[in-house]
Amino acid sequence: MSIAIAFLAAATPLPAAPPMPPIVSKTLATTRFKAAETILRNDHERFVAEIVEITQTASWPFGESNRARLYADLMGRSGFKNVTIDGIGNVVGVRPGRNPKLPALVVAAHLDTVFPQGTDVTVRREGTRLMAPGIGDDSRGLAALLAFSRAMDAAQVETDRDILFVGNVGEEGPGDLRGTRYLFQNNARARTAAAFISIDSTGAGKIVTKGVGSNRYHIVFSGPGGHSYDKFGIVNPMVPLAKTVVGLYDIQLPSAPKVTYSASVAGGGTSVNTIPPQVFVDVDMRSTSTAEVERVDRELRAIAQHAVEEENATRSTERGKVSVDFQIIGKRPAGQTDESGGLAAIAFGAATAFGYDSHFIAVSTDANVPMSLGIPAITIGSGGIGGAEHSPDEWIDVEMSESVKGLSVGLATIISSAAAR
Amino acid sequence: MSIAIAFLAAATPLPAAPPMPPIVSKTLATTRFKAAETILRNDHERFVAEIVEITQTASWPFGESNRARLYADLMGRSGFKNVTIDGIGNVVGVRPGRNPKLPALVVAAHLDTVFPQGTDVTVRREGTRLMAPGIGDDSRGLAALLAFSRAMDAAQVETDRDILFVGNVGEEGPGDLRGTRYLFQNNARARTAAAFISIDSTGAGKIVTKGVGSNRYHIVFSGPGGHSYDKFGIVNPMVPLAKTVVGLYDIQLPSAPKVTYSASVAGGGTSVNTIPPQVFVDVDMRSTSTAEVERVDRELRAIAQHAVEEENATRSTERGKVSVDFQIIGKRPAGQTDESGGLAAIAFGAATAFGYDSHFIAVSTDANVPMSLGIPAITIGSGGIGGAEHSPDEWIDVEMSESVKGLSVGLATIISSAAAR
Repeated sequence: MSIAIAFLAAATPLPAAPPMPPIVSKTLATTRFKAAETILRNDHERFVAEIVEITQTASWPFGESNRARLYADLMGRSGFKNVTIDGIGNVVGVRPGRNPKLPALVVAAHLDTVFPQGTDVTVRREGTRLMAPGIGDDSRGLAALLAFSRAMDAAQVETDRDILFVGNVGEEGPGDLRGTRYLFQNNARARTAAAFISIDSTGAGKIVTKGVGSNRYHIVFSGPGGHSYDKFGIVNPMVPLAKTVVGLYDIQLPSAPKVTYSASVAGGGTSVNTIPPQVFVDVDMRSTSTAEVERVDRELRAIAQHAVEEENATRSTERGKVSVDFQIIGKRPAGQTDESGGLAAIAFGAATAFGYDSHFIAVSTDANVPMSLGIPAITIGSGGIGGAEHSPDEWIDVEMSESVKGLSVGLATIISSAAAR
Repeated sequence: MSIAIAFLAAATPLPAAPPMPPIVSKTLATTRFKAAETILRNDHERFVAEIVEITQTASWPFGESNRARLYADLMGRSGFKNVTIDGIGNVVGVRPGRNPKLPALVVAAHLDTVFPQGTDVTVRREGTRLMAPGIGDDSRGLAALLAFSRAMDAAQVETDRDILFVGNVGEEGPGDLRGTRYLFQNNARARTAAAFISIDSTGAGKIVTKGVGSNRYHIVFSGPGGHSYDKFGIVNPMVPLAKTVVGLYDIQLPSAPKVTYSASVAGGGTSVNTIPPQVFVDVDMRSTSTAEVERVDRELRAIAQHAVEEENATRSTERGKVSVDFQIIGKRPAGQTDESGGLAAIAFGAATAFGYDSHFIAVSTDANVPMSLGIPAITIGSGGIGGAEHSPDEWIDVEMSESVKGLSVGLATIISSAAAR
């Protein structure tokens, strides 16, 4: 999950709390759910051991395969039959429901971390505090899925819907959500799913219902280049780059939905006395509305194209023209999930029932993909407390009562969401 | 000398040839000059050996001291008395004239090369072709000064003026002419000199009479920086940078004197999803007129300052303001030397007399400094042919007849310029 979640939570106004869905109260009241909770507690030592084992099997962007094989093995040892690894590297295990014809529920946690290959992933333990890169984001989420399925099996919890448990690749920045993209394009059960729940990072009560979408470009302006004194008068790609930045910051935005842009990184050029043959600027555009991202995108392209034409018309093109190339760094679809009922209300109600301060937040997670396809989707925490995500000092605390209480929220959300309505 | 000389020669319109100064005809007709020419020929093998020895004593920007010590030693072995190395590293030897009270003539070649420490400077020889970094620019010039003084001594050539022979530091880019700057600030004989001749690179006939001046800046725009989505709305230093580039390219320039500018290198920023805390653009401004460079400089600073103020007024400064800092990369004074007579006409006439196609060119060399102080100054070649300056494939050809003919042009120019008028 993006580290931005903490900032965003503060910035997002709280909507009115949705009413408690009856299915949540019903689920929590069952003896089987209570049994499952007890099993989560009794199984907690194994859960922690699996967090450690997963964390110490390094997994980096586009390097998730070792952890994927481990996870498939752990799924098998947790009782899943026919665990598969799909074409892009997602691990998928199905827990059958009563009615396999019903649209399935997809529950996922992500296999990748932000840390590069070679990062020391040895877990250090001080009391109930475990420290290692990726331990909360998202080793704990992956282990939670295993603990959920074992608790449901041991407590004989039956659901109406099949549940696809997925350890997916590519959630973090460079992965650009390729794991969930692939899943929702190629897996028939995912494509027709009733809902999607991502278990990502620690905590309970924050429910991602707005998927911030983004288009990110490495915009390269090229020209002939030449000696700054001798060739003065020829086109300079730095000029249309500059006009594009100025134009971007003149684009008018609505007050809602939130739309943002940023000219973030610049580079290029040879030496101070050379008209540059190539310069670039990296631009980020985001919104909870895909339409708004696309509008800014279209305006920006028009501005850049106009700036290039203006430069070719203003200065000499004797040695060549300037041109612009929008290279895609990332493209994440935006989306949102209805907050007044359904999946979001179940998660809200479950967290509230366990005493958490529930609220809805906007951030970019694996839930963006199903949201953009119209499938109800949320991202919630795996419980427990933790911090310093995306930093080498990442940590979680596995003190059992808080850890199990947070896990119980996830379990109640999953069981309630797997009921036919 | 800047590699730009070849380009610039083509771009500069040829002025009317100045009349042949009588002093040149008179010098060439003396038996002592003819004797000196013969000595240049007889001494040629030693001249070539010294080119090799100088070249193989590596000298890089701000790392000229080994070569300076060698050069002081070679000057001593060539007959100079009281050779000194001044406070910045220039090697200075004086050849007394008949009247030490007359303003002196300064003749210089530069000790530095563009090549970094560690460059392989082993000279390879194929027939009369010698290959090594810096061998033409300016090892041959340095060796030429030694050959000139020995030929004058052996032929008993007497001059009215004292001649300061100088091996100076800091001619190439990063050196920013610090050797000649120091010389003309601190050496009383240089400060009051009658004229300055730099012997730089190969060839004969191209006479630098226009010193292209330049102001070069690393312009840094800073701001608070922040997350591109969460902190959207705060000031972004990329915007005033872009407006500064756009404004620079809107500055109107006269058709003459030639003035140029270039926004050449850009950089900065952290990641595509971060509003950058710092970005920069490197800018080069040049002209043969210092006043024009300074005018563009003032306009650019005003544009940047205005762009910064506009950004601070347009977006939120809650987390801090944007600011701009002009960091000087280089500042070379502009200047020119009268082409209708005097020093320039002597060099023109001497080259013409030896059958060279003479012409005046504009480029940045050590002559910029005395030109900017109103001292007549030129830069001419050391003769012979060569190429690939500033490249590891640099070469010269020391075939004797062409090599000595080119040296003779320099010698005639020096002797004629050392005469009282």
